[in-house]
Amino acid sequence: MSGISRFRETNRYFCTMSFIQTDTYQVRSYETDASGRLSVPTLMNWMQESANRNALDYGIGMADLARQGFGWVLMRFRLQINQYPVYNDIVTVKTYPTFVEKFFIYRDFQVLAADGSVLAVASSVWLTFGMERRTMVPLPPFIRAVDPPAGIVPQEKLSLKLDSVPMAGCVTQEQPVRFYHLDQNQHTNNVCYVQWLLESVEADTLRQHRLTELDLFYRAESHWQDTLLVGSRRLEEGLNYQHRIEQADSGKELLIARSVWQ
Amino acid sequence: MSGISRFRETNRYFCTMSFIQTDTYQVRSYETDASGRLSVPTLMNWMQESANRNALDYGIGMADLARQGFGWVLMRFRLQINQYPVYNDIVTVKTYPTFVEKFFIYRDFQVLAADGSVLAVASSVWLTFGMERRTMVPLPPFIRAVDPPAGIVPQEKLSLKLDSVPMAGCVTQEQPVRFYHLDQNQHTNNVCYVQWLLESVEADTLRQHRLTELDLFYRAESHWQDTLLVGSRRLEEGLNYQHRIEQADSGKELLIARSVWQ
Repeated sequence: MSGISRFRETNRYFCTMSFIQTDTYQVRSYETDASGRLSVPTLMNWMQESANRNALDYGIGMADLARQGFGWVLMRFRLQINQYPVYNDIVTVKTYPTFVEKFFIYRDFQVLAADGSVLAVASSVWLTFGMERRTMVPLPPFIRAVDPPAGIVPQEKLSLKLDSVPMAGCVTQEQPVRFYHLDQNQHTNNVCYVQWLLESVEADTLRQHRLTELDLFYRAESHWQDTLLVGSRRLEEGLNYQHRIEQADSGKELLIARSVWQ
Repeated sequence: MSGISRFRETNRYFCTMSFIQTDTYQVRSYETDASGRLSVPTLMNWMQESANRNALDYGIGMADLARQGFGWVLMRFRLQINQYPVYNDIVTVKTYPTFVEKFFIYRDFQVLAADGSVLAVASSVWLTFGMERRTMVPLPPFIRAVDPPAGIVPQEKLSLKLDSVPMAGCVTQEQPVRFYHLDQNQHTNNVCYVQWLLESVEADTLRQHRLTELDLFYRAESHWQDTLLVGSRRLEEGLNYQHRIEQADSGKELLIARSVWQ
């Protein structure tokens, strides 16, 4: 726990309150996929919505950062899905920060069914960029001051290194970045990448199997009207894939990922 | 009002109850577009979610139809947007059937802000297809028996004819139908078409203007792995567009539409 900030001043910049965010979502018809299960992009949207709301309570929401010239970037996300809810199910998402370091803040998620059983868990790593130079900066003091809630049991810290995935050997498809793919920072929404890489696996995998693990490493941003190349490679053992998304013209790596299906 | 069914038997097939559906939705961060306003696809998803829930109360939900070998198809949708909600706003969607005819059921929508002001209205026309032959069939008796709520003021009936839009003269882009574009009937979700046709207008229109009217005529379905051609043509007067979506290989017309921006 040595990574946790011990800042204790209390003023409008240095918030020492601790919050566990708890939201409920009821599965809407359009949030399911063709098989009737909650879609993975919707699940990820819910988790990030709850993360945003938790950040607001800590005084480190998107608007709080924007006022000081910073923005949030998701760097790592690792999702494990045990069971999928279906239409009308009521689902609880819990999220809270777990570690705060010089450059990175870690955040865990739990997704629970109405009976309290664990549908999914996730962990994530976030960083801040400075809007002026649009590069990564150390977490500003008002974020460093965040105190993770007492009594939580953090998931293991995600590795900040992941082997690159070469595009050679991948099945690829082109993907233009269109208007509704953008977030309010004018970057491609990180959940759009997930939708694209899941859609790039074999039809039989999408129809007959279910995603159980997804590990994402976001490497760079993309923008409106960029053309991306989305690649997936099935590994020899089991239903495991590697994925890569890059800029089609430059080959610049945007995302590397791995997925496991059952 | 001669088109309203006067069926009055009450048994499990002939439901004569009347319901106005009222749901509230709070705008989530990922439901806004790059300009921070509620996205039009999300607004349409909300309206159809409420329509589904209203249909459930009437005993004519998707599952009720599927059990008897039928499915719902949206044929016409006309949307007028006065004002866009933003993040965190609480929005009420009201919907109810207005007319029931031999082949078509009409449904209206009102979208209200927390202060009761009207953000948007819409009207729509739905038909049923028989799952066996996958063609349009007359509304089965348990749907004909639906009684629109008393005291409503229906919007004008939508025309069931709309001039075709030729692809010649349109700016076009290709769109593959991917896994997450499918609904549970294994057709392309009707809101995906809307996203694609809005994204096909000029960048300046998307950035500087707001959609105020959208009129949709769904002509045929498409399926997973189809390749579609999405076309838009700006008319000479004002910010008005015509749109067409067709099968790329056959030219078969799937959707014609018109949009007005301000």
